[in-house]
Amino acid sequence: MSDGPVLSARHLDEEALQTIHETSLTILDEGGIAVGHEGARERLAEHGADAEDDVVTLPPEMVESALDAAPSSFTLHARNPDNDVVVGETPVYAPAYGASNVLTLDGTRRNSTLDDYERLTKLVQSVDAINCTGFSVCEVSGVDSAAKPYEMLQRSLLLTDKPVMGDTFGYDRAEASLDLVSIAVEDDSLSKPYVAGQITPVSPRRLSGHMAGGLLAYAERQQPLVFASAVMAGATGPATMAGTFALANAEVLFGITMAQLVSEGVPVVYGTPAANFDMHATSLATGSPEGALATAFSGAMADFYGLPSRAGGCLTDAKTIDDQAGSESATHLAATVAADTDFVLHAAGMLEAYATVSPAKFVLDCERIQAAQRLQSGYEVSEETLALDLILDTEPGGDFLSERHTLTHAREEHFTPDVADRTAYEQWDRDGQRSAGQRGADRARELLDDYDRPPIDEAVKADIEAYVDEHV
Amino acid sequence: MSDGPVLSARHLDEEALQTIHETSLTILDEGGIAVGHEGARERLAEHGADAEDDVVTLPPEMVESALDAAPSSFTLHARNPDNDVVVGETPVYAPAYGASNVLTLDGTRRNSTLDDYERLTKLVQSVDAINCTGFSVCEVSGVDSAAKPYEMLQRSLLLTDKPVMGDTFGYDRAEASLDLVSIAVEDDSLSKPYVAGQITPVSPRRLSGHMAGGLLAYAERQQPLVFASAVMAGATGPATMAGTFALANAEVLFGITMAQLVSEGVPVVYGTPAANFDMHATSLATGSPEGALATAFSGAMADFYGLPSRAGGCLTDAKTIDDQAGSESATHLAATVAADTDFVLHAAGMLEAYATVSPAKFVLDCERIQAAQRLQSGYEVSEETLALDLILDTEPGGDFLSERHTLTHAREEHFTPDVADRTAYEQWDRDGQRSAGQRGADRARELLDDYDRPPIDEAVKADIEAYVDEHV
Repeated sequence: MSDGPVLSARHLDEEALQTIHETSLTILDEGGIAVGHEGARERLAEHGADAEDDVVTLPPEMVESALDAAPSSFTLHARNPDNDVVVGETPVYAPAYGASNVLTLDGTRRNSTLDDYERLTKLVQSVDAINCTGFSVCEVSGVDSAAKPYEMLQRSLLLTDKPVMGDTFGYDRAEASLDLVSIAVEDDSLSKPYVAGQITPVSPRRLSGHMAGGLLAYAERQQPLVFASAVMAGATGPATMAGTFALANAEVLFGITMAQLVSEGVPVVYGTPAANFDMHATSLATGSPEGALATAFSGAMADFYGLPSRAGGCLTDAKTIDDQAGSESATHLAATVAADTDFVLHAAGMLEAYATVSPAKFVLDCERIQAAQRLQSGYEVSEETLALDLILDTEPGGDFLSERHTLTHAREEHFTPDVADRTAYEQWDRDGQRSAGQRGADRARELLDDYDRPPIDEAVKADIEAYVDEHV
Repeated sequence: MSDGPVLSARHLDEEALQTIHETSLTILDEGGIAVGHEGARERLAEHGADAEDDVVTLPPEMVESALDAAPSSFTLHARNPDNDVVVGETPVYAPAYGASNVLTLDGTRRNSTLDDYERLTKLVQSVDAINCTGFSVCEVSGVDSAAKPYEMLQRSLLLTDKPVMGDTFGYDRAEASLDLVSIAVEDDSLSKPYVAGQITPVSPRRLSGHMAGGLLAYAERQQPLVFASAVMAGATGPATMAGTFALANAEVLFGITMAQLVSEGVPVVYGTPAANFDMHATSLATGSPEGALATAFSGAMADFYGLPSRAGGCLTDAKTIDDQAGSESATHLAATVAADTDFVLHAAGMLEAYATVSPAKFVLDCERIQAAQRLQSGYEVSEETLALDLILDTEPGGDFLSERHTLTHAREEHFTPDVADRTAYEQWDRDGQRSAGQRGADRARELLDDYDRPPIDEAVKADIEAYVDEHV
């Protein structure tokens, strides 16, 4: 509705991006990436990479060709086609991914369970702000590790009808995810992009056997790969952000190249969710300004390559839902929106630097996303919106409250929060002085009470369940 | 240190800004502003404005001339010249202004007192993030209203040596502020800009007698005027943001024109801290996306005019220091920084849509400002920061922790928070599970305990006190 987006994050010029690109090419050409998967190394060697030992180096032309082959956008299909998303055109928001703890609605912090996975997945289905179900919305405990990915993805597929992500931990688990999704979408050959898999290198310069296997499985079946190199400046990368980004970029380019060699044109998403290591706290700092810089970089570099970008959403290092959680999450989200990020993982629910997920914060983050989108959409400047006659007709000291123009435009022009409190102090006091965290928990309970399971063909549901039963 | 600022907010093109400008000129030419001060109306009429009744209309040429006369930057001098700031070059951060309630460090909300004013002013002096003392850091109760401005400004001048703002409520109170500052800076004629006064119209289209008087007093003595038109979209302005900004712009242009007619070249700061009226909560929403849009607009329009901009800093509608307070404050701050705002009023301490100030939130906001500045400063891309050799020399799976490059750069490249918690959960738990609000209060107490009164010439101090004693 506006002249343009309100916030933008274009801080590096073409020359700086080109310099980082060339540095990354040199890292791949002269240093290379250690790949813990023999089959993957062989595949790369077949295409001309130097893979004499575990470390694979890539000539620059091979990387450049891969970048040329990767598409600038693609549709990620959902089992309900109404929920398909075009990655690279409309921003995709996926929930927290991989947290092994949950902060429950009654405030207890403990290991995540399948019940938590269900609750969080139901919330995903219930809100407009999140348009991708993700995967591992929590990393569950108490389930046999072989059975876990089946149990998790089954719930993603049955409790939501939004596009999903799948397991990437090794070729076999990835294959299982791909098979399960193919059943849900009734497309055995996965003829379109239906399930995205995240690939995370081990910085510096390693791709584990499991991740390489996952990459192969998705690439072979032309399913989208979301690359995420989470270099920690000062620990797994140089302290300087430029060096950390050059390293992260090299790791992502390696993955993109491998994917394109396996299957030319396979959709990829470019992501460098780097951050910094806090020397004082001796911990990863995800809610830091440096983390937000990584998001700005990810958007800029992806644009340079003409690829969709992935970056972190509402990230924080806070342990509880407090001012720090809100502040860090909102700052990182502002950078995410400003960088025109195409695929926002960890958009909602995250606390404690990826360690804990919270359904109450999930709700608050969803509202934060909607407010940020409202800010970013700006406003129209036109005769109707300038309202000159109305202004001239309103006496000095008068008001616009009951004007038709006001009633017509207020609803569309003003964001109305569901959870944030804007009442007078006295009203807030009468309502029990509820903090945002408490109101988020209240709203999460309401959403769970009102949750409706999306329809699914009974035969398809039976096939999914049979496949899972067979494997767990 | 970077290629450029990370976030920017240039959402309106020249044509849209020109359209808003012309709409505002028409509002002033055809509608005008009601001015509740006979002397002011006479002054305007002398210069060719139409001031036949209370409503003064301005011909467009008069406004354009005033805009040409106003400087693009100016130095605001402090009684300690080390603390001078160049408004229009280096961002100026001033604390909360005008809140009549305080949320004390022990969590009680009550009317603000002179003791609160002292505590908040001491905090201003203690932190690097705030480089202007402001004025009315809380609007105190329990003091005779005639004595109040003297009591307040005396504390601003004695407890800090940063540049100050002064009273603008009527000609006489403004004069008193100007005299008091002239004593503190030992410059009877106020030969340089020493004290800034904020002028707020009453939207729509009114300038009260008190504000007009304050404006006259500051302009006559060539002291800077900070204009702030806080139109509420949907209540005191049209619901559409474009219309609200056109109205706010007209009100600010009126003030700027009046100031330049009184004293050509007097420094002015352009500000439209508009927001929206929430129809559901029936209240002003300052932490809204629309409020942040007003900040983006203020920066863009000020740039269009070649004037320094004023916009709101860490604003929120939250009643307590919670996720909402952090989120809204950080979002508005991101917009403030992105808009390249020159003069940030309400930078620290505000809660409850201007109604309450909190010393604990003051501390958190200061850290938020420093983190936002770190984000905005970006990072250098150079041979040293790309660290190619270091990356190539570090084995796959190795680390950079004890490298000299890391130790050299981490301190300058990474922001280290004072209050935000980044420790492991176990450590945070052992430390008593302190929320950000509690940690902010702890830090505020420490700062107050460690506060040092800035030196002042004893004779000057005696003169200030004598002047105040004479008038209260």
